[in-house]
Amino acid sequence: MSQSNRVYLFDTTLRDGAQTQGVDFTVADKAAIARELDRLGIDYIEGGWPGANPTDDRFFADPPEFQNAKFVAFGMTRRAGRSAANDPGLASILQTKARNVCMVGKTWDFHVDVALEVDRAEYLEMIADSLSYAKTRMDETMFDAEHFFDGYKANPDYAMACLAAAEKAGARWLVLCDTNGGTLPHEVERIVGEVVKKIPGDRLGIHTHNDTENAVANTLAAVRAGVRQVQGTINGLGERCGNANMISLIPNLVLKMGFDTGLKDGAMQRLTHLSRLLDDRLNMPTNRSAAYVGTRAFAHKGGLHVSAVEKDPKTYEHVDPEIVGNQRIIVVSDQAGRSNIMARFRQIGLDVDPKHPGVARLLEIVKERESEGYAYDGADASFELLARHELHTVPDYFSLQSFRVLAERRVNAKGQTVALSEATVKLDIAGRRAMEVGEGNGPVNALDAALRKALLPVYPELEDMRLVDFKVRILDSAGGTAATTRVMIESADAKGRRWSTIGVSPNIVDASYNALYDAITYKLFRDGARPAQPA
Amino acid sequence: MSQSNRVYLFDTTLRDGAQTQGVDFTVADKAAIARELDRLGIDYIEGGWPGANPTDDRFFADPPEFQNAKFVAFGMTRRAGRSAANDPGLASILQTKARNVCMVGKTWDFHVDVALEVDRAEYLEMIADSLSYAKTRMDETMFDAEHFFDGYKANPDYAMACLAAAEKAGARWLVLCDTNGGTLPHEVERIVGEVVKKIPGDRLGIHTHNDTENAVANTLAAVRAGVRQVQGTINGLGERCGNANMISLIPNLVLKMGFDTGLKDGAMQRLTHLSRLLDDRLNMPTNRSAAYVGTRAFAHKGGLHVSAVEKDPKTYEHVDPEIVGNQRIIVVSDQAGRSNIMARFRQIGLDVDPKHPGVARLLEIVKERESEGYAYDGADASFELLARHELHTVPDYFSLQSFRVLAERRVNAKGQTVALSEATVKLDIAGRRAMEVGEGNGPVNALDAALRKALLPVYPELEDMRLVDFKVRILDSAGGTAATTRVMIESADAKGRRWSTIGVSPNIVDASYNALYDAITYKLFRDGARPAQPA
Repeated sequence: MSQSNRVYLFDTTLRDGAQTQGVDFTVADKAAIARELDRLGIDYIEGGWPGANPTDDRFFADPPEFQNAKFVAFGMTRRAGRSAANDPGLASILQTKARNVCMVGKTWDFHVDVALEVDRAEYLEMIADSLSYAKTRMDETMFDAEHFFDGYKANPDYAMACLAAAEKAGARWLVLCDTNGGTLPHEVERIVGEVVKKIPGDRLGIHTHNDTENAVANTLAAVRAGVRQVQGTINGLGERCGNANMISLIPNLVLKMGFDTGLKDGAMQRLTHLSRLLDDRLNMPTNRSAAYVGTRAFAHKGGLHVSAVEKDPKTYEHVDPEIVGNQRIIVVSDQAGRSNIMARFRQIGLDVDPKHPGVARLLEIVKERESEGYAYDGADASFELLARHELHTVPDYFSLQSFRVLAERRVNAKGQTVALSEATVKLDIAGRRAMEVGEGNGPVNALDAALRKALLPVYPELEDMRLVDFKVRILDSAGGTAATTRVMIESADAKGRRWSTIGVSPNIVDASYNALYDAITYKLFRDGARPAQPA
Repeated sequence: MSQSNRVYLFDTTLRDGAQTQGVDFTVADKAAIARELDRLGIDYIEGGWPGANPTDDRFFADPPEFQNAKFVAFGMTRRAGRSAANDPGLASILQTKARNVCMVGKTWDFHVDVALEVDRAEYLEMIADSLSYAKTRMDETMFDAEHFFDGYKANPDYAMACLAAAEKAGARWLVLCDTNGGTLPHEVERIVGEVVKKIPGDRLGIHTHNDTENAVANTLAAVRAGVRQVQGTINGLGERCGNANMISLIPNLVLKMGFDTGLKDGAMQRLTHLSRLLDDRLNMPTNRSAAYVGTRAFAHKGGLHVSAVEKDPKTYEHVDPEIVGNQRIIVVSDQAGRSNIMARFRQIGLDVDPKHPGVARLLEIVKERESEGYAYDGADASFELLARHELHTVPDYFSLQSFRVLAERRVNAKGQTVALSEATVKLDIAGRRAMEVGEGNGPVNALDAALRKALLPVYPELEDMRLVDFKVRILDSAGGTAATTRVMIESADAKGRRWSTIGVSPNIVDASYNALYDAITYKLFRDGARPAQPA
């Protein structure tokens, strides 16, 4: 049987990935990640579970506009004892702005008996009823066959009956889930091989977990057996040991197995960026050993390796690092970088001659700053300002003379605890001194208030600028509260622009000031503000 | 053809694992890890490369006494143009206290041509000569067939001729290496399937790397195709993306595929310990999501999952965590219900009647606090203190009257930028007032210093407590710098304990104080400190 070469990618970072212990996406995080996934050309973006928590409700009420992707809501089949039309859980899923739904249901008889405590035949009705009803409201419906592999091993007839019920109810995709992650690749191959005899592979999806460290291999085995939808998360995020890692799946499917995943031109080169963007958003350390995108993935240490690599990189590299937006690192000679910097220039639309002396200088500065703890992958605006500064294409709008921030907490005369923060700033704006004081409910907020008060009379462009996210990370954790602090700030304005900036210092207020300074300068530059002139 | 069920384990943590960027074993590290591997019953322990560096020379001059394992030296086939007997590299390998050697050689024609620049026929002689000579000096010789899979794809005849030369020279094992890590499981299956037609599987080994995130799957595919020696490293340590992870391979082979690995009774239960021992030795953070042994590997978050797991753990666990020495974790989160809370009580050793009025109150408090931004799933110590506080089993060691923190940045008389942070605290300790001032390189560090100064004279237990990590997250990002701040602190003490605490406030300093307060209280409580008494 000839089969299409097209594999559909379904990203569940924002839904199953959000189940990771310690992971807590904000609405802004979800929007930023979804926009990046859409830009790459991912087919399906599952945004969360409407009705399950306030973050998902807000995200589904006002999702980003997608250019390529289908936006999917996750939900559960209806409860026993009521119709799909009267199920409040289903109602909250079907009333969002998502036009597609992925509905999870059981396929393991043991779960129907023990977890749900519902009659098995009745449960088949529940699947059919839920999906038929959803089909009347949505463009596309899908069925996540929870515990499919365990279910198939225990009772293949019942597992297949669950799939058949969903298929008959019009589900576009039937997704075979290895929910507990305990299935090995040769078992996936055998079971999927049996399933595709009854249901065509272009109606089947695969969803695996990494509990035996085989999530990627299990997914590839299923695709080889005929499955054509692949579910995964960025960096393999997900509860317990995580989901199948989309960042590894994509190059394996495309570069090594020759599948068409529908990704846009240039998408593959953004994988390294995407991987690090997620870590920065979640304030998580990057996995340096990650396949394809880790900082060590193309690092060569031994002298013999290095000389062979210099003769021909193919001797010790399975793919060219630039294909996935990563870079070769020669640990001893440390000559990495220029091509990377040039690639970043192209990304921000700066057309620079590689021989411009500013390029070499910038390379030095970036290396030095990254060794201090700066990370420009999640701070595009700071990188752009740094680059433009070296190339003399951005003006100095103001400079800091000093700031002082006070934060206190005490019990007042009435016995109430009161907290207060106050900041003073002294700025030099084209030779004139501006001195202002601001209050806030935290020291950084107070500093932000004082800065705006000092700058607004000169730069009214700042009126519509607001801070949408603020993250702090401690870099040298051995130092505890004395360690280096990295602050990342995301800003937005009324034109719908968003930009990220970074500041690093042992002092959190100082690091915050640096990130605020970049955020304000970027806004003024982008708005084409005229620098104030000396009186 | 019937084949033995016995798979031999070959650990190369101390050799190939030592190639990891940033990893630097001491002789003591090597001895401690080797002893633990020997205790488990690992068949072969490769200790390093004698002659390559002073650490390995010292380790091979005086290795531990092994009860079970064969101790292996790694080395390279002789150079071109001299006999094996006159090769200084071979000499340093064969003169150590190891009675077994694993010798690496090429099998990819491209490498023989480009990296070695040696005639292909001559290279076959070099393999034969080196292994024959080694065989006269050693108990067991093995041949690491570098780049075997790439070599086989390029020129199967030459790759097989290299294996045949080593086999004829008496090598006990011919180890098929995927040196660049680019081979996928279905290719391993196909190629090994062809090799075993010519060389019996009980003479073949497999050595894979994780560059496509398939190292474990590739190893399992080779074993299923007949290979009977498996090489790997603890936690998948190794250069670039690492080697096959022995910690995942062992339970997959034994629990899921029914192989006999010769491990001692009880060895499997020590896997979690072994994994964390390596991280501690190398001062690396543990991979919380690691298969089988990660702290998250058996963590359950969602309320539905938790109630199903309590009915029968098999619903959401692929194996029993205790089999590998790990444990189930019931995470408290915003989906928490009474069953989560009760399960958590049992885990922290609190025996509480579910009808105790404190339980319902605690549930309310947890829900309310989580809606404010507290997240107890990463802050075990804060959860325990909250619970014990509601159940009146933890004393108040001190209380805060006030603090004031000052952070400033200015340009000094010499034109240098200086930043300064200072904090004052006023505490009530059993009716006595303690007032102290501290300095730091950031406001939280200064506050920490002032608190310790005030408390140490009364509570000397705090002397060995240190902060190992400090993370800040902004929760309601819509508010920008005015938003709610969540601080998480991880602390440790000289007893090897680690605990995490949390603080939430719109003011970052205030939130930090709350997390510091919990960290200190938990330390005092765990040490059984006596609360100070009124004078």
